Amino acid sequence: MESPELIKNLQARVKELENELKCLKSSNSAAKPAAERRGKIAEMSSEVVDSNPYSRLMALKRMGIVDNYERIRDFTVAIVGIGGVGSVTAEMLTRCGIGKLILFDYDKVELANMNRLFFQPHQAGMSKVDAAVNTLQDINPDVCIEAHNYNITTMANFDHFKNCLKNGNLKTDGQVDLVLCCVDNFEARMTVNIVCNEICQTWFESGVSENAVSGHIQLVKPGETACFACAPPLVVATQIDEKTLKREGVCAASLPTTMGIVAGFLVQSALKYLLGFGKVSAYLGYNALEDFFPTMALQPNPQCDDRYCLEQQASYQKRLSEMPPEPVKEAKEEEQITHEENDWDIQLVADDAASEETAEVTPTLAPGLRQAYTLPAERTVCAGAEESVETTEQSLDELMAQMKGL
Amino acid sequence: MESPELIKNLQARVKELENELKCLKSSNSAAKPAAERRGKIAEMSSEVVDSNPYSRLMALKRMGIVDNYERIRDFTVAIVGIGGVGSVTAEMLTRCGIGKLILFDYDKVELANMNRLFFQPHQAGMSKVDAAVNTLQDINPDVCIEAHNYNITTMANFDHFKNCLKNGNLKTDGQVDLVLCCVDNFEARMTVNIVCNEICQTWFESGVSENAVSGHIQLVKPGETACFACAPPLVVATQIDEKTLKREGVCAASLPTTMGIVAGFLVQSALKYLLGFGKVSAYLGYNALEDFFPTMALQPNPQCDDRYCLEQQASYQKRLSEMPPEPVKEAKEEEQITHEENDWDIQLVADDAASEETAEVTPTLAPGLRQAYTLPAERTVCAGAEESVETTEQSLDELMAQMKGL
Repeated sequence: MESPELIKNLQARVKELENELKCLKSSNSAAKPAAERRGKIAEMSSEVVDSNPYSRLMALKRMGIVDNYERIRDFTVAIVGIGGVGSVTAEMLTRCGIGKLILFDYDKVELANMNRLFFQPHQAGMSKVDAAVNTLQDINPDVCIEAHNYNITTMANFDHFKNCLKNGNLKTDGQVDLVLCCVDNFEARMTVNIVCNEICQTWFESGVSENAVSGHIQLVKPGETACFACAPPLVVATQIDEKTLKREGVCAASLPTTMGIVAGFLVQSALKYLLGFGKVSAYLGYNALEDFFPTMALQPNPQCDDRYCLEQQASYQKRLSEMPPEPVKEAKEEEQITHEENDWDIQLVADDAASEETAEVTPTLAPGLRQAYTLPAERTVCAGAEESVETTEQSLDELMAQMKGL
Repeated sequence: MESPELIKNLQARVKELENELKCLKSSNSAAKPAAERRGKIAEMSSEVVDSNPYSRLMALKRMGIVDNYERIRDFTVAIVGIGGVGSVTAEMLTRCGIGKLILFDYDKVELANMNRLFFQPHQAGMSKVDAAVNTLQDINPDVCIEAHNYNITTMANFDHFKNCLKNGNLKTDGQVDLVLCCVDNFEARMTVNIVCNEICQTWFESGVSENAVSGHIQLVKPGETACFACAPPLVVATQIDEKTLKREGVCAASLPTTMGIVAGFLVQSALKYLLGFGKVSAYLGYNALEDFFPTMALQPNPQCDDRYCLEQQASYQKRLSEMPPEPVKEAKEEEQITHEENDWDIQLVADDAASEETAEVTPTLAPGLRQAYTLPAERTVCAGAEESVETTEQSLDELMAQMKGL
């Protein structure tokens, strides 16, 4: 063999072996993660080179979408539930270079989870949070990740969970910037709701139906938009959590598509909310069978069962009444997070809304949707109830009577 | 460095790497990817146990969504372009247990790709197809994966590419069941279009805008719906591919959210098309800033520049005219793939459509959209042109004149 050809072959062989070695080492990343990881990057750069993991994100500035993408590093987001939606949510935020993530889950990875994105078969048996931290830190070592392997709904963990949200902020040591709820059961959603109402924490609820072909996300700003307890969970209450179902030999269906799309909506909305671009929908639904995407406004219920929700409503109304005559422009200048305050389609009503305001109170429902019930206070449909909105055959009066009986 | 010395050094390096590899393989059982992989599963089971990777998918049957989920194993899908959309598309189909995937790409993984899902930093430098095959086979060894590391747009590869689509089917050795186009440039889209028109191959086009905040998918059934050449690419033609941009020190923006959502729509539509459930939209757009999702019908252009498109249109019209008077029911019984034929909102027009049919010809446009131009043949907007549809300020007449001038 001629020298040049031999050299070429040898070089190719070296590359091949290096790749194989790299693969082998990474497949065992649980054992030796740190050595493989790239060094931390001190400052996000816009430089267009193959080695810059942030060039395509920083390009959002040149494209006129985001004013200051680097601010992403200042934000702390808590994700509750690291399953089919939560894990992909965590991965997307990690790849976007979020400042800090706080993860909560108490489940283990199983082969039965492999029909959704993120977890890999070799992680079966590991706790979901440990497996997630390993993978996420490999993907982006710049992100600060804190993980808690416990059930937030037990008395023992409730206070710890609350303190994490209250004091977990990377920059301020105060409240986190946003909570994303990606759990699969009613109790955990109620726990997130209670804590967020108490500490006035903005959060997004998310959910995927048991038949795997619909889902939704919902923005909850305590006192300002409907909380999870504001509307009686006509549908949600009948859902049984996955563990109970499994014991009976049945399980909910799930698809990587629907869960990936819901996670995509959730993180897209979180980015829009945090970085101040575009319109953040108060509710965005997804019906996969029809390619139908309902959006709607959700107002808080003055008769909500959660006393903290009522307190936040009063406090919000107070803030609103103290605002100068043209709150839209003034608010924009005062708010730390720009755009978010007025770009949503949410219509606000004072508790003692005068009759001339009533016309504006009706929430904007997408075509094909109608309200499941009405109340004097103009409350709207409940979180996770998109199915009932679309499929209920009960009249408004029947639903209202049913709800009053609860 | 002199050749002999270089050769010596390279040989030493090969030996060193081989040894390291050997050590790693023998000393650490966890570091054997192939050995780590679960055994192949002969038949998909509905059993609800933690070790069954298909339980949540087979539950789609119990939920009444899919009649026969196991059929997924009979299908072969080709994915062209394994970037931000294509890689997630491949992962979703792999986790769904698709029979066979054929992957095409000629790019390498870079750290600059880490702002999108799927690839990991340790894969930087590997070819995208090799990296993808490694990860996908770890996730699901039941899927048969074939990968081609070349540029489909060169003369040298064109025939090979065509033959792969023509003879790649896992079950029949004939045509693949579906092609998903996930490329980032005009030439590659045109290549997919030309081949699919020639062999009458159904495919989905997909795309994400340069500013990262909108995207779309489009179904192309040669002769039956608009092909990529049916409408002049008023917008697409101005797009420059990523390599050219990079040389100039700029790059397109991208987000894991938008790309994950477009991949989700693409695979959801592919599942609906292959397994026969729900409605498959001819076009589904996504505008992230407004949470707006336009759908529309797309009809072929009788003056299309692609001669194979014209042949397929004639052939489709012939098939249509030979159908019995009530083609809707008859077609359903004859078609291998049920539901797909009549659940779309596509309205078909004979070439010589009589005046009484004209009223039905107008494509259904979502609110806020209008046709960019009209022609006697009622062609509709072009693939990838959702931006122009939403933002164009030209009148229909101006656009028509402009198009006629092309």
